[in-house]
Amino acid sequence: MGALEISEEALSRLADDALARVKRYWSALPELPAAPRSDGAATAALFARPWPEAGLGQAVLADFEAIAAHARPSGGKFFGYVVGSAEPVGVIGELMAAALNQNVTSWRSAPAATEIERAVIGWLGEAVGCAGFAGSLCGGGSAANLMALAMAREAKLPANESGVLSPGIVYASTEAHMAIPKAVALLGLGRDNLRRIPVDAELRMRVDALAAAIAADRAAGRRPIAIVATAGTVNIGAVDPLPALADLAAREDLWLHVDGAYGALAALAVPEKFAGLDRADSLALDAHKWLYQPIECGCLLYRDRARARAAFTDSGDYIRILNDSPAETFAFFEESMELSRRFRALKLWLSLQYHGRAAYRAAIAQDLRHAQLLAEAIAAEPALELVAPVPLSAVCFRHRAKDNVAILRRMLARGRVYVSNATIGGEFVLRACFVNHRATEADVRAIVSETLAAAEELNR
Amino acid sequence: MGALEISEEALSRLADDALARVKRYWSALPELPAAPRSDGAATAALFARPWPEAGLGQAVLADFEAIAAHARPSGGKFFGYVVGSAEPVGVIGELMAAALNQNVTSWRSAPAATEIERAVIGWLGEAVGCAGFAGSLCGGGSAANLMALAMAREAKLPANESGVLSPGIVYASTEAHMAIPKAVALLGLGRDNLRRIPVDAELRMRVDALAAAIAADRAAGRRPIAIVATAGTVNIGAVDPLPALADLAAREDLWLHVDGAYGALAALAVPEKFAGLDRADSLALDAHKWLYQPIECGCLLYRDRARARAAFTDSGDYIRILNDSPAETFAFFEESMELSRRFRALKLWLSLQYHGRAAYRAAIAQDLRHAQLLAEAIAAEPALELVAPVPLSAVCFRHRAKDNVAILRRMLARGRVYVSNATIGGEFVLRACFVNHRATEADVRAIVSETLAAAEELNR
Repeated sequence: MGALEISEEALSRLADDALARVKRYWSALPELPAAPRSDGAATAALFARPWPEAGLGQAVLADFEAIAAHARPSGGKFFGYVVGSAEPVGVIGELMAAALNQNVTSWRSAPAATEIERAVIGWLGEAVGCAGFAGSLCGGGSAANLMALAMAREAKLPANESGVLSPGIVYASTEAHMAIPKAVALLGLGRDNLRRIPVDAELRMRVDALAAAIAADRAAGRRPIAIVATAGTVNIGAVDPLPALADLAAREDLWLHVDGAYGALAALAVPEKFAGLDRADSLALDAHKWLYQPIECGCLLYRDRARARAAFTDSGDYIRILNDSPAETFAFFEESMELSRRFRALKLWLSLQYHGRAAYRAAIAQDLRHAQLLAEAIAAEPALELVAPVPLSAVCFRHRAKDNVAILRRMLARGRVYVSNATIGGEFVLRACFVNHRATEADVRAIVSETLAAAEELNR
Repeated sequence: MGALEISEEALSRLADDALARVKRYWSALPELPAAPRSDGAATAALFARPWPEAGLGQAVLADFEAIAAHARPSGGKFFGYVVGSAEPVGVIGELMAAALNQNVTSWRSAPAATEIERAVIGWLGEAVGCAGFAGSLCGGGSAANLMALAMAREAKLPANESGVLSPGIVYASTEAHMAIPKAVALLGLGRDNLRRIPVDAELRMRVDALAAAIAADRAAGRRPIAIVATAGTVNIGAVDPLPALADLAAREDLWLHVDGAYGALAALAVPEKFAGLDRADSLALDAHKWLYQPIECGCLLYRDRARARAAFTDSGDYIRILNDSPAETFAFFEESMELSRRFRALKLWLSLQYHGRAAYRAAIAQDLRHAQLLAEAIAAEPALELVAPVPLSAVCFRHRAKDNVAILRRMLARGRVYVSNATIGGEFVLRACFVNHRATEADVRAIVSETLAAAEELNR
């Protein structure tokens, strides 16, 4: 028996113990504070320990409760950042995926997982009005945006062979996510060649300003390559004017990438807000955001599989040696920067079918309603002020009179709701984002009462 | 109640059902064929279906057995590629990690997960003789190699701001993994600027040839930036001469990256084979290979955290607004290309402590022994021929008289063992790689008998 073998009985006991702890955690979620009571030194002291020479056996599971006590819970009180609420069928999907341990590099390595990922990619494409797009699942928005811009670079100013000899210019609004400059830097294009285009009063990219920037670059002899539209800015959920941007991209022969990591999946419930999405060359989505899946489950969709292959194929023909049917020679690594890939599609496969499409549509619609409800409650409260429109489910607001940094600190310490912050017009403001299938109207109303209670504490 | 809510009872039943299926799968693993009996059309037909409008509920789990039947099992018969064997404590760690749903961007977002990842990074660094290295977990070797070369580029020929204006030169052996040219291409350095250095008879990079290539590039006015050593080539497990490469890198002021995705963790059992690893600037490891963890669990270690920050920081100071202790302002995304990150460290935390360091050392030593055992069995068999040395646990061999492509097809169809293939000296050969804690001596011996049986079938 190998050194790491576990008897069937011991493994069964271990798994039962682990699942029992997970179930207790799920049951306790509604009662957990919105933020853990952690500080750096205490948390480090709990978990700073050497790798023991001798095994501890099942006793290792006893750490679970300490970990949970120093973890941010995905309960109905969480409205920070853009983080989904870990739908539990998806969690169970992760268990099954880990047990199956498929390396979803290619059909040859993982037949069922490859077909399921392709099926799920089809569902996601249809859900956002982009039926027929190809794509793959990936780690998240950062990976999807990076791969999309790699495809754009290779399509418009190829650099894979010779390198970036004269950088292409990329355009995104001032509200675009930090993943965009990070991708531009990684790809060797240079952040200096990312133009941050100003936004209108609703924080959408200004098409006139974009057209002027493109013209100025062309006049200076520089080479525009891509427009990055945002479909749901991280701060307020603004959706850039996709049809006008698609027209401009077509006219200027530029790649149109849409960063829909936060927002695009809302097209399932409100397709009218996302008209023009199907004109993108590539589209980033995060199922771990607005499809509530456990982290991580990003997705890149693209119109033309050949563009992905031009950007990422580096494998020669070796997988074609043993098989020759198109299905059996399919390899994700020829269309993605990843080689080893886990079976991310299984959680979506199980969770999306368990609940059905109507339930997902209703959950997203509820998030949108919750955001409007919060916006109305803030508007009705004289001490508070809404600082931006609410086109999707992110609500930015401030206390008119108090230090909002101090209020946020107090709110997190109180633990009734978790909100985060944003910078709007250069100012620190509070922000609540609804991609949470567990949140109730009471939780939404608590955001207002907790802001006021935190402000009141500052008077003491 | 929200559209996606599940009652505690229904969720408990669902989770029990799922775990029971996983346990049955684990119990059946020894009996499963080494490769699924799948073909492209049949697998697609099983899983090509629309996302249903109405939910299916617990019935979705019934797909599990069909998926497993069309999945490559991680049992003791698998010796293909370099894929670990999904140690089940790690699998349970994935369940717990998904339930906790931590977004391990930063301490602020995930205190316990951040501390545990830092602890585990410390363990991995120590295990390979690189105590004190910083790092983070990532998707796999492709991501780790890409990030390492991004750090190298930024350290030696910064491009994040202005772009790659004159490409730097990167050196790797002809045996380096395809992740290296892929990373060089993505970074905008250009595959033309990757020098493939010839290898010696044991398929290790030739230091004299490397020195000559560097001198030639300098003489031509080009700018060398990085050497990529491989510690365990994917084909045969060759370890490039690390001390001599480190000396050369120091003399030439080049970044030394070691791609140890497959091999470096064997330093836990045979540190003498990896002398010099601690002189690397960066080191890629895959715990989903030689620590047997479920996919995916890659790791990048680096000597100087400031180099990672120079390559990846793009966030300004916004996380410093609410906290000011060094522990509490720590953010992985300032040292990694990822933003959203799942709690990969939990499976390592549980699995490594469950079994203890001695058991992992023994398991790796057993893989090394299994490789030697196979090499000896092949040497003793006149019809077969070992085609390369076996410095670690990858064994390349061929049938002397028969078509080895046809033999491999037959071996996979027979289903007793799963081996894959490699190209050695331009020739298609068979390859068995041992990173499998479930394999027994009988499985190892079956590789020989199955090769002979497959060859025999070709006579019929």
